[in-house]
Amino acid sequence: MVIVMAPGATQDDIESVVAVVASAGGEAFVSRGVSRTIIGLIGDVERFAALNLRGLAGVADVVRVSTPYKLVSRDNHPERSTVTVRGVPIGPDTVTLIAGPCAVETPAQTLEAAKMAKAAGATLLRGGAFKPRTSPYAFQGLGEKGLRILADVREQTGLPIVTEVVDAHDVALVASYADMLQVGTRNAQNFALLQAVGAAGKPVMLKRGMTATIEEWLMAAEYIAQRGNLDIVLCERGIRTYETATRNTLDISAVPVVQRLSHLPVIIDPSHSGGRRDLVLPLTRAAIAVGADGVIIDVHPHPEQALCDGPQALVNGDLDELAMIMQEFPKLMSRTLAQGA
Amino acid sequence: MVIVMAPGATQDDIESVVAVVASAGGEAFVSRGVSRTIIGLIGDVERFAALNLRGLAGVADVVRVSTPYKLVSRDNHPERSTVTVRGVPIGPDTVTLIAGPCAVETPAQTLEAAKMAKAAGATLLRGGAFKPRTSPYAFQGLGEKGLRILADVREQTGLPIVTEVVDAHDVALVASYADMLQVGTRNAQNFALLQAVGAAGKPVMLKRGMTATIEEWLMAAEYIAQRGNLDIVLCERGIRTYETATRNTLDISAVPVVQRLSHLPVIIDPSHSGGRRDLVLPLTRAAIAVGADGVIIDVHPHPEQALCDGPQALVNGDLDELAMIMQEFPKLMSRTLAQGA
Amino acid sequence: MVIVMAPGATQDDIESVVAVVASAGGEAFVSRGVSRTIIGLIGDVERFAALNLRGLAGVADVVRVSTPYKLVSRDNHPERSTVTVRGVPIGPDTVTLIAGPCAVETPAQTLEAAKMAKAAGATLLRGGAFKPRTSPYAFQGLGEKGLRILADVREQTGLPIVTEVVDAHDVALVASYADMLQVGTRNAQNFALLQAVGAAGKPVMLKRGMTATIEEWLMAAEYIAQRGNLDIVLCERGIRTYETATRNTLDISAVPVVQRLSHLPVIIDPSHSGGRRDLVLPLTRAAIAVGADGVIIDVHPHPEQALCDGPQALVNGDLDELAMIMQEFPKLMSRTLAQGA
Amino acid sequence: MVIVMAPGATQDDIESVVAVVASAGGEAFVSRGVSRTIIGLIGDVERFAALNLRGLAGVADVVRVSTPYKLVSRDNHPERSTVTVRGVPIGPDTVTLIAGPCAVETPAQTLEAAKMAKAAGATLLRGGAFKPRTSPYAFQGLGEKGLRILADVREQTGLPIVTEVVDAHDVALVASYADMLQVGTRNAQNFALLQAVGAAGKPVMLKRGMTATIEEWLMAAEYIAQRGNLDIVLCERGIRTYETATRNTLDISAVPVVQRLSHLPVIIDPSHSGGRRDLVLPLTRAAIAVGADGVIIDVHPHPEQALCDGPQALVNGDLDELAMIMQEFPKLMSRTLAQGA
Repeated sequence: MVIVMAPGATQDDIESVVAVVASAGGEAFVSRGVSRTIIGLIGDVERFAALNLRGLAGVADVVRVSTPYKLVSRDNHPERSTVTVRGVPIGPDTVTLIAGPCAVETPAQTLEAAKMAKAAGATLLRGGAFKPRTSPYAFQGLGEKGLRILADVREQTGLPIVTEVVDAHDVALVASYADMLQVGTRNAQNFALLQAVGAAGKPVMLKRGMTATIEEWLMAAEYIAQRGNLDIVLCERGIRTYETATRNTLDISAVPVVQRLSHLPVIIDPSHSGGRRDLVLPLTRAAIAVGADGVIIDVHPHPEQALCDGPQALVNGDLDELAMIMQEFPKLMSRTLAQGA
Repeated sequence: MVIVMAPGATQDDIESVVAVVASAGGEAFVSRGVSRTIIGLIGDVERFAALNLRGLAGVADVVRVSTPYKLVSRDNHPERSTVTVRGVPIGPDTVTLIAGPCAVETPAQTLEAAKMAKAAGATLLRGGAFKPRTSPYAFQGLGEKGLRILADVREQTGLPIVTEVVDAHDVALVASYADMLQVGTRNAQNFALLQAVGAAGKPVMLKRGMTATIEEWLMAAEYIAQRGNLDIVLCERGIRTYETATRNTLDISAVPVVQRLSHLPVIIDPSHSGGRRDLVLPLTRAAIAVGADGVIIDVHPHPEQALCDGPQALVNGDLDELAMIMQEFPKLMSRTLAQGA
Repeated sequence: MVIVMAPGATQDDIESVVAVVASAGGEAFVSRGVSRTIIGLIGDVERFAALNLRGLAGVADVVRVSTPYKLVSRDNHPERSTVTVRGVPIGPDTVTLIAGPCAVETPAQTLEAAKMAKAAGATLLRGGAFKPRTSPYAFQGLGEKGLRILADVREQTGLPIVTEVVDAHDVALVASYADMLQVGTRNAQNFALLQAVGAAGKPVMLKRGMTATIEEWLMAAEYIAQRGNLDIVLCERGIRTYETATRNTLDISAVPVVQRLSHLPVIIDPSHSGGRRDLVLPLTRAAIAVGADGVIIDVHPHPEQALCDGPQALVNGDLDELAMIMQEFPKLMSRTLAQGA
Repeated sequence: MVIVMAPGATQDDIESVVAVVASAGGEAFVSRGVSRTIIGLIGDVERFAALNLRGLAGVADVVRVSTPYKLVSRDNHPERSTVTVRGVPIGPDTVTLIAGPCAVETPAQTLEAAKMAKAAGATLLRGGAFKPRTSPYAFQGLGEKGLRILADVREQTGLPIVTEVVDAHDVALVASYADMLQVGTRNAQNFALLQAVGAAGKPVMLKRGMTATIEEWLMAAEYIAQRGNLDIVLCERGIRTYETATRNTLDISAVPVVQRLSHLPVIIDPSHSGGRRDLVLPLTRAAIAVGADGVIIDVHPHPEQALCDGPQALVNGDLDELAMIMQEFPKLMSRTLAQGA
């Protein structure tokens, strides 16, 4: 940590800072410049953070020089991790395709979507039973009934299930059906939920908050990791910007940035980021090429009847091209398409 | 709702749209232009929304022309509302000062802050017992112990309490102590929490999500209102932008914009928006002058020891000027400073 | 300047940095921590900036601790400045009202708007003869003919003229008519134009780029100041954010932030920031209350016929309230309404 | 164009709108709903835009349903265009690599960088002689001397030159040396410059404004096209968002979005978007995979000595991997690497 003193800071101000740092067991190194003095701190960053150094007289700025996350940081875990979901790997050697309907609506629709997913190369099935919706008047999902449909479709297709949980107190219920718990973009700072999924004993897919910085996203992962669960897959799904041509702006650079900061796998959701069917395949290609460890894609047998996000779902006519992408692009990255157990 | 057809849409495409609308009990008015056709829809908007019209062949865009919120809309409730918190009004005739410490730390600190608040003209006491923090390593609040401190200070000062709740399952506990429940910026789309506070029988202060549009904010209020609670005060607290000189960017225009769209009172938080003590008084003056129904301000007897957000808390030396602002500025707006019961 | 070394930086890396700094005539202070080393630099910042220190092996980050602007900085000029435009002051003791039509359209419209402006308390007349427009098909202004109309209206009303210049090579022409040159938001990084207005010998109003940081805005002012012109008034006019309810988001906090960083006067444009007539008066009140040194407002006798930005212009029916605001609000700030020469 | 009337609009209001539209030679189709009336307009959109319809009584909103650009629109030019720069194609059948130093510094550095570019597969040389810089104290480029260096290096290597022009009045000079004129991100709304390059008779590379919407970007291209020049290549180079881990956020979705709206080629700048060397190769792969028609990349023989943007330049050690990407990735897109004339 570095303290930057204001131009008018006095010798007393500087000595006070040094004393406060010493009282927290730290050492302070003072460098005097022509117009400013800077003070480097060595010691326990957490204790320094609690000191409220910015509040001291003469302090202009406090610059943190170490990252605030630990368990998910690559500093302490240089090898990139592989998370395994009922035998299906997500990690640096593979590209994993997760696909399925945005929302579970009926058994027939879910089964049909699962077959579409499998035909394209998917080895994990996505599908929402609990849907967080901006409007209280919109379809909120089938709840436990939806979870049972997913379990039946898993039985029929062999595809493990990834599904969202939106409330800390539903975690046990959802975990009793799901193979991987998804935390959605609107819950990226719902700390009670993060802690609950951290304790649930299942792998977690953590979507980036649509307005979260990369650091906030990793801090959210740290909340999960703190409860003893390091089976976390990060999912970039677009951030909110001023551009209105797409629903959100896919921050594709986040993949290599995060892979450098954290050992956790990172995948991309090309469906929700753009919100447009015509962008899904180009963004899927880009996702693999940038080095993402997988993609999660909406498919729907009849999107014009979908109860949620129909405009972004791939349809049967798109599947051949998706399957081709999943066959050809991983090779160029020296990866293989992830297979089931 | 208006459907804009693509330039190449066929007569069949248009007839399909008309048929789909009719099947939902609506009427479709077709206007053919030189390059495009537009179709106006009359009928039940919720049913139209479920049709997934964007998914139909030949449809380029679907434009919604009515607002998605109802209970909180001013369309259906032209008079602006006053919310009363244990006798203290927040509404169009008054300016209400809510003040207190960001976090409850000790009985002494809380009592001292409450006295500071009262001296400046506050009639409601803010103070956090449950603190949502970006880092799992940061101070998370005293929990129920903090609520008891707040209740004791209410006893000693007569100031009703506004305090945050961060998890749906704490609502009953917090409501048993608090006079007003606060939903914070990170929970602006925590729908389970919004529904729980809607059912708790206490007035609610709903902070704007730091990246919520005004429409999303009003939709969040609608979640609360739907559970039978219209005692909602909206609080603008800054939005996330690219500017880094302030923690967030106070969207002061949101006050008149929201007052035109909704009947609910709107207040401003000048402490959290800027994150800097030197901005609090200027932004407080601006808040009253723009027409806000109140302000909520952090004060702390010893901010250099604060466990949370010390850099933005007003100190004793600022109180005279704050008191002066609260005396003089409401008059210019033909309002009075809100008094206790 | 502070250099933060990467966790894995070697002793050689550190010594290289020290040597490079020494070669530029600077001194380097090395502080070794448990996980990282930081190096404080004392010397000529410009020379350090040219060293490309981030490119050196083992360097993780370079943190600048002094501001990059000098002439416009308050560090070197603690007293706030007053800029005088043909006898009309803009500065810390007054609130100056600048008003007029967005675009000069006809002599009659301009004269009528100028009379409206004067009736409301304006002592400077705004009006655009050169209009930068997003669409090449939109009205681009009357050019020199518009400047002549402004000069005639100045003759008839006594109001000095503020008008925009959009191309470096029009500066001499515009300066031959105008009393103050305006640089618009789209030209905030048109450095050739900034240098030309810096050399023109007339006061300049510099609008903030709609996506400029405060630092970039002050750097743009520095370009003007470098050419010998310190008669610069900064104008906050809203920044681009994700919110769509207003055309831009007025960053009202920028006023006190800039007044702390720079000695230059700062005014607010409540018309262009919101783009809505119903926001102009509330934002004008807020602007004065936050401490702005003036406001610049669109008025139009017949906004429904305006060729540019009619929806935001105040009309005759708004003038009494504007005049009242200009009479009452400056008093509360211990200021007076700026008078003509 | 569609006019949405306010809920309280009267029959008179509606008739006024119809009359105003008729006076502009248009036809108005009125659709009455339960709570609102909408009016569809058929006729000359430019004339409607000049009517200022939002200013009429009872009008709540005016929705434009056709695009404001024409010459660059794909509606009127369904085939995607190929722009040829001294024999080098940029278009739908190829992937073109443009590479070189950010700034021309010396003949030796420029030649060395050009050889690096060529070795990696580049057939066009980039290099800046006029540099727009945020700080007036930063290196501003060598000017004409830099252009002469570029011309010499073209002679020696056979690579045609792409270089930036920053002022309308330098266009003739720069065009006398350059094979392609670049308009930079800070000049994306410098309309005088856009018109000047439109008239210069050379192909133009138009970078997206770092905060321009896609529509504004295409409107800027329309300014160039209007002067008779359709040899325009669009370049996405990252947009400004709240994320600070990268200099800007590469909006990779903009490539397929723009290719659908416009017939112009679109390339990506992976160097300036991220501002980090470690992101350049991953983003280059993603650019080709998403369907970009080319990439423009900074290379520098000694980036630690670069006068501009050294931290993002590729070095000799990166070239083999870049060459491999340029060989392998275009094939997967059924394209070839663009060759020289």
